[in-house]
Amino acid sequence: MTVTMDAAELTHFLGREFPQVAQDFVIEEVGARRIRVRLAVGERHLRPGGTVSGPSIFALADVAVYLALLAMIGPEALAVTTNCSIDFMRKPAANTDLIAECRLLKVGRVLAVGEVLIFSDGAEAPVARASLTYSIPPQRDDEKS
Amino acid sequence: MTVTMDAAELTHFLGREFPQVAQDFVIEEVGARRIRVRLAVGERHLRPGGTVSGPSIFALADVAVYLALLAMIGPEALAVTTNCSIDFMRKPAANTDLIAECRLLKVGRVLAVGEVLIFSDGAEAPVARASLTYSIPPQRDDEKS
Amino acid sequence: MTVTMDAAELTHFLGREFPQVAQDFVIEEVGARRIRVRLAVGERHLRPGGTVSGPSIFALADVAVYLALLAMIGPEALAVTTNCSIDFMRKPAANTDLIAECRLLKVGRVLAVGEVLIFSDGAEAPVARASLTYSIPPQRDDEKS
Amino acid sequence: MTVTMDAAELTHFLGREFPQVAQDFVIEEVGARRIRVRLAVGERHLRPGGTVSGPSIFALADVAVYLALLAMIGPEALAVTTNCSIDFMRKPAANTDLIAECRLLKVGRVLAVGEVLIFSDGAEAPVARASLTYSIPPQRDDEKS
Repeated sequence: MTVTMDAAELTHFLGREFPQVAQDFVIEEVGARRIRVRLAVGERHLRPGGTVSGPSIFALADVAVYLALLAMIGPEALAVTTNCSIDFMRKPAANTDLIAECRLLKVGRVLAVGEVLIFSDGAEAPVARASLTYSIPPQRDDEKS
Repeated sequence: MTVTMDAAELTHFLGREFPQVAQDFVIEEVGARRIRVRLAVGERHLRPGGTVSGPSIFALADVAVYLALLAMIGPEALAVTTNCSIDFMRKPAANTDLIAECRLLKVGRVLAVGEVLIFSDGAEAPVARASLTYSIPPQRDDEKS
Repeated sequence: MTVTMDAAELTHFLGREFPQVAQDFVIEEVGARRIRVRLAVGERHLRPGGTVSGPSIFALADVAVYLALLAMIGPEALAVTTNCSIDFMRKPAANTDLIAECRLLKVGRVLAVGEVLIFSDGAEAPVARASLTYSIPPQRDDEKS
Repeated sequence: MTVTMDAAELTHFLGREFPQVAQDFVIEEVGARRIRVRLAVGERHLRPGGTVSGPSIFALADVAVYLALLAMIGPEALAVTTNCSIDFMRKPAANTDLIAECRLLKVGRVLAVGEVLIFSDGAEAPVARASLTYSIPPQRDDEKS
């Protein structure tokens, strides 16, 4: 299985399909079943004390698996998250970007599963881990057959 | 176990401690180990097509369990989410508020567990379900002893 | 959506398809999208102290959602668990049967989601909660089309 | 953080505390925050077709995190699973042992989090992934103070 979209194509796709959030995320590296995505932390992601909020961490995990999946299967805006399990393990460093390291464990016909570790930029111990399932809609040529 | 904070007190607490997001949420009903919270959906919660975003659904589930817990144990800003499992089951209705119906299943000494069903306002079939664990910090009088 | 298999039919199906474990479970009540299943606790389910083991609790949650699903869609041995999230909240009572109260939240074309509360027989506070996703294989007449 | 129990000590502990299941598991390698455990598959773990059952996969993930934790904190029989999220991704190979590769992501004062990949022995693609949280009981010298 090879990569069908690179970082530039994914960035372009994200900006076109999800303009509300595209500027939050920087795609740092794309590989076979792997991606690294940065959350460029801004005021709107923070809680009192400068900590990145839970929903922002969730959003980063979610977008990382989505982009890792698109990199493999191509621009499929309709893939949807069906399940997420997330463990918040440490307080993020204040006012610091988060880095998601994502790996796809399965890219099936109807379901894909990815796991994500999230770090405060420069830290070794993860802030959170997440696993997500995406449902992949039937492809057009399947529907025709 | 009785309720120690009512809807007005919880609303006041949320506005003081989490001013960035407090205006998103309306506490509709508080009971023993139960709460109903509305996400007043605005432009910032939406994805193309008017669908409420995954992170916004996560945020609603998270705040619902947090507030249900505070209603029981009192204003404890330091309770933190340690785990969330969420299933996204149906597409939310476009441009419609979401309602979270939350129930606490456990309020222990160090951990609390709540479950949440989330509906598009007026719909019968849930958009999502979530279960969350909160870690409750040691209380001051425990620390003294 | 109506029930297509009752308790007797489900019991017969379980005994035929899963003879290794069928005697562990008693189907107590079946309704639309609901089921109650008892784990008839025996020596093999116990840990030191007479507590029911985690894997036995998992097995009960898993079979409850499976049977609730079959009650709706008919005898489909090939439905498979794709995800389970489970919270263990209290120690089960020693040497006591467990009761699973299961509700289906979604029965879709390819995925079904159920949630389960598990109690020691006679107790009010749940021992565990679980949510499970089942993948439903394509039906024969779909494949033909 | 260093390992305080090696494979022989963990094996001895498991046999003494959990005699019902100890013979199912072989501890293959122990490292800092890591462990590899084999499920020696027998008739009682199988479903029709020779596939390892879901509860057996759960049991393997659970014991792997437990033993990885004990290797770090010492023989603490009272650590209990509070949460497990598990994704079943592929059918296990028939009549084949399973291998759990476990890594601890957090060993805190009251909570530990581990993640596990499970493989059919010799296969490259994982059968399942799981993440588990353990609650660590207060230590005796804490209780004294």
